[in-house]
Amino acid sequence: MPAMKSAFQKVALVGKYMNPEMREQILALAGFLLKQNIKVVIEESTAAQSDILGHEIVHIDAIGACADLAIVLGGDGTMLTAARALLDHDIPLVGVNRGRFGFLTDLSSESMLEGMAKILAGEYNIEQRMLLSASIQCDNEIVSHGYALNDVVVNKMGMSRLIELEVNIDEQFVHRQRSDGLIISTPTGTTAYSLSAGGPILHPALDAIAIVPICPHTLSNRPIAINASSKIDIVLVHTEDAAVHFDGQLHKALKQGDRVLVQRAEKTVSLLHPLGHSHYDMLREKLHWG
Amino acid sequence: MPAMKSAFQKVALVGKYMNPEMREQILALAGFLLKQNIKVVIEESTAAQSDILGHEIVHIDAIGACADLAIVLGGDGTMLTAARALLDHDIPLVGVNRGRFGFLTDLSSESMLEGMAKILAGEYNIEQRMLLSASIQCDNEIVSHGYALNDVVVNKMGMSRLIELEVNIDEQFVHRQRSDGLIISTPTGTTAYSLSAGGPILHPALDAIAIVPICPHTLSNRPIAINASSKIDIVLVHTEDAAVHFDGQLHKALKQGDRVLVQRAEKTVSLLHPLGHSHYDMLREKLHWG
Amino acid sequence: MPAMKSAFQKVALVGKYMNPEMREQILALAGFLLKQNIKVVIEESTAAQSDILGHEIVHIDAIGACADLAIVLGGDGTMLTAARALLDHDIPLVGVNRGRFGFLTDLSSESMLEGMAKILAGEYNIEQRMLLSASIQCDNEIVSHGYALNDVVVNKMGMSRLIELEVNIDEQFVHRQRSDGLIISTPTGTTAYSLSAGGPILHPALDAIAIVPICPHTLSNRPIAINASSKIDIVLVHTEDAAVHFDGQLHKALKQGDRVLVQRAEKTVSLLHPLGHSHYDMLREKLHWG
Amino acid sequence: MPAMKSAFQKVALVGKYMNPEMREQILALAGFLLKQNIKVVIEESTAAQSDILGHEIVHIDAIGACADLAIVLGGDGTMLTAARALLDHDIPLVGVNRGRFGFLTDLSSESMLEGMAKILAGEYNIEQRMLLSASIQCDNEIVSHGYALNDVVVNKMGMSRLIELEVNIDEQFVHRQRSDGLIISTPTGTTAYSLSAGGPILHPALDAIAIVPICPHTLSNRPIAINASSKIDIVLVHTEDAAVHFDGQLHKALKQGDRVLVQRAEKTVSLLHPLGHSHYDMLREKLHWG
Repeated sequence: MPAMKSAFQKVALVGKYMNPEMREQILALAGFLLKQNIKVVIEESTAAQSDILGHEIVHIDAIGACADLAIVLGGDGTMLTAARALLDHDIPLVGVNRGRFGFLTDLSSESMLEGMAKILAGEYNIEQRMLLSASIQCDNEIVSHGYALNDVVVNKMGMSRLIELEVNIDEQFVHRQRSDGLIISTPTGTTAYSLSAGGPILHPALDAIAIVPICPHTLSNRPIAINASSKIDIVLVHTEDAAVHFDGQLHKALKQGDRVLVQRAEKTVSLLHPLGHSHYDMLREKLHWG
Repeated sequence: MPAMKSAFQKVALVGKYMNPEMREQILALAGFLLKQNIKVVIEESTAAQSDILGHEIVHIDAIGACADLAIVLGGDGTMLTAARALLDHDIPLVGVNRGRFGFLTDLSSESMLEGMAKILAGEYNIEQRMLLSASIQCDNEIVSHGYALNDVVVNKMGMSRLIELEVNIDEQFVHRQRSDGLIISTPTGTTAYSLSAGGPILHPALDAIAIVPICPHTLSNRPIAINASSKIDIVLVHTEDAAVHFDGQLHKALKQGDRVLVQRAEKTVSLLHPLGHSHYDMLREKLHWG
Repeated sequence: MPAMKSAFQKVALVGKYMNPEMREQILALAGFLLKQNIKVVIEESTAAQSDILGHEIVHIDAIGACADLAIVLGGDGTMLTAARALLDHDIPLVGVNRGRFGFLTDLSSESMLEGMAKILAGEYNIEQRMLLSASIQCDNEIVSHGYALNDVVVNKMGMSRLIELEVNIDEQFVHRQRSDGLIISTPTGTTAYSLSAGGPILHPALDAIAIVPICPHTLSNRPIAINASSKIDIVLVHTEDAAVHFDGQLHKALKQGDRVLVQRAEKTVSLLHPLGHSHYDMLREKLHWG
Repeated sequence: MPAMKSAFQKVALVGKYMNPEMREQILALAGFLLKQNIKVVIEESTAAQSDILGHEIVHIDAIGACADLAIVLGGDGTMLTAARALLDHDIPLVGVNRGRFGFLTDLSSESMLEGMAKILAGEYNIEQRMLLSASIQCDNEIVSHGYALNDVVVNKMGMSRLIELEVNIDEQFVHRQRSDGLIISTPTGTTAYSLSAGGPILHPALDAIAIVPICPHTLSNRPIAINASSKIDIVLVHTEDAAVHFDGQLHKALKQGDRVLVQRAEKTVSLLHPLGHSHYDMLREKLHWG
């Protein structure tokens, strides 16, 4: 049987931020891909940190335009960063994690080459994951904007004990809430911070957004899941010091009276899963069920 | 301006089971409707319990075919019973509750006539609520079937300390779980038993099903919300004594090896809300937020 | 150095109920003890199930009077049964569990002989664990009584959806509660059913009782820990079908109006731990911390 | 009957910080006390804010030495501040709160004079409440120290997503925990922040300390209650930015490697309750039970 040509002609390799010890793994993967006649580009800072020469080097912002698959080596945090960076181009991501697989990374370092061989042979599925788009409004003016694949978190900062938020959904008043903060989570994010705060797990195929209070003063302020088409408007009614966080990676300070407007982003992230991937298998392993 | 003709020509009145003290309220409502030239039928057992004569009396199963609106006087429990009984006919329900309104009942006894006047004038919305359809399978044969507007609950009974269930969703294995039981809830049911068991609140407009373990042995067995199009298959792996409950009102005993297959029913229930009804207002009042 | 004489002259072996496959393990342990010049008695039903002959056989009720240490082979359930059975005599218990150790069993089957050698050499601590004593009162008369090392649970049974309880502590009214039931737990029991119901972990050295509602209707009905000297009085205000459970092993049906009076038992159970035993090590392993 | 002489000869009045509108209430109380031949002193900043002249004015630090009862007008926050300030002197406190009573304030503004009359007539109980004493250790040196009537909280600050703590109790390793932080709470504090974080309610008569993780990464990291004689040692294993808080009112920045050592303070706070005060009544009202 003649070798089927892979759907992927050029693959980008993105490593964990500030982790030079990934050099070996990246070189092994690059070598493997080249042998299959796949072109390889290395993300710029990854190459710099790992002292990788002799490959095409491109800035993260340019990867989307030149590659048709990105392999991300690192944990869920690296995947989150890469997903937001590659958002403008419809390029699928697949994650490789050391040890056991992560919530977002389907391949383990140990079986990386074997897994990639299957993917190049077409044995994969592509899944679209929703992102959140959040605008920060100050004095009726949008002053900042960000995306999140996991969550947009508004919380107290510094020495303040709690904040008071007003939450409106689709222009309906929901409540005023005194708490440590509020998590607005995609289904993807419901296995991350949201889960620690007592939120439910939303299956990624569910078109929903979870709204999870962090240590609410009122005990009946329970997590709510709403339709992903909803528009959420959070007003900082009372705060001494607060901030909004995107995937726990980007942060903006907020002050009393500011609003955070959150809704589903128009763009999605494409995750590539090897055939046979089951979200429930992943939950079972990561959450030590049974 | 000539009086606009109401969309409702014939209204059925259904009272709380075994509550003769509703007589006054039912008669007031019947009188009010007759004055507006609306025909009135009284549900058979309601009429018998409250000693109501002089009105057309029909059995609950016949209401759907003869009336075009059902007014249910009682709490959420009465609404659940009526909703399942009227399922085969597309007749909207509106609930009247004594004191404060319930999760399913929008009108209070005090402002009942005023509310009805508005509804007859067309000031209402109709909302479709999802139901669950559950089959009980024993030795590969369906032995029983039921509907639920709130929840299908599989739990331990009698003196057994816990049961062991295997949960599969869309033919994917989710986990084996040792617990007091499992709640499969519609969005409507998420403010009922599911909430007491630690489940999230799902907005009724969200096309989802919540799966909420009751006192799970494994602490990371958290509530999950999945797409309403999913098929849930629960196997009683180990039990001494178990049962399945529909809205906490109908019950069937289960034994080891039995399966409970749960999915969204094809039919929905139509709830009639006076204009201006907000689900968040209801949550805020019923859950004492703020 | 001459061999120090063990503090234990006669050791009883108690096996898991209805588990004939323990024969090998029991015989190994008996042989080991006899070699150390320790007398061995085998609990009657254990001997019968495992076909053990050639050893002194005594009924469980007589063990306390004739042995000065009981080795319990089985899981936490076997320990609970043995602890209640041996309550009238101050004889320490040590548990041997297959695989990993349990909450109450300190020795694993694999290192059983090694562990016993240390214990016979005096390398152990004895810890007193509190029990609960509960009386069931019907029409102002005590109709039943029981002990629990883990918990006394009052809950709904059969097909009833919930029960309504009135709780009084030291003759002070606490609240009326609608729920699936109520767990009254010793510190020992706080890592068992109570934990699944959302209760806190109480360190065994804490002289306290935990009161943990099971799926309470009111979300702010949170677990309470009170002084172990308190007297708890539970009245079944409303129930169709309810029961009280002792360690999930003994059960009594309850009816509306019955009271369950719970307080610390005068007697305690002595658990023998190999030196170096740490409750936190056990929590960390059993609850998969970190 | 001749008037019984009150146990209290000189009463200090302490108002809420920065709340000049308490003037009326303070003057009413002062007038009432003077009529009963009780001497009155006004706390210095209270007098300054409320423009109160013509009374003896003393600094908060001197109140303990010159008065034999302190009436605190304000909420639970004012009580916490006053309790810590008066710690060196064994002077009882009683709180007066506007509207409904608080967790620490037994008298309402409306019935303040009536309540005080009863107290002056000896109709009261004195209850001792435990405090926590916490030292901050940096490079093996104690650099700071504080007291808390409610809680000592170690948490992440600024933009960091989580901290990693190592917890040791009585020199036994408990676990390493990744979370938003950790609450060490007295029984008094268990109805405050600890409750929002999912902690149990500890009755004030229970000699215990609650250790409650805030949004722990590991879902089985549940709240623990330990004997109040325990010594808790928290090491900041990994943090970018953290702080320790005393009653949410005093704060100290922490850095990686710092330790926070927490134990029961030798001193206690004396709360004066009108006769008939029940902790359960207070819980029922404040937590909206039933």
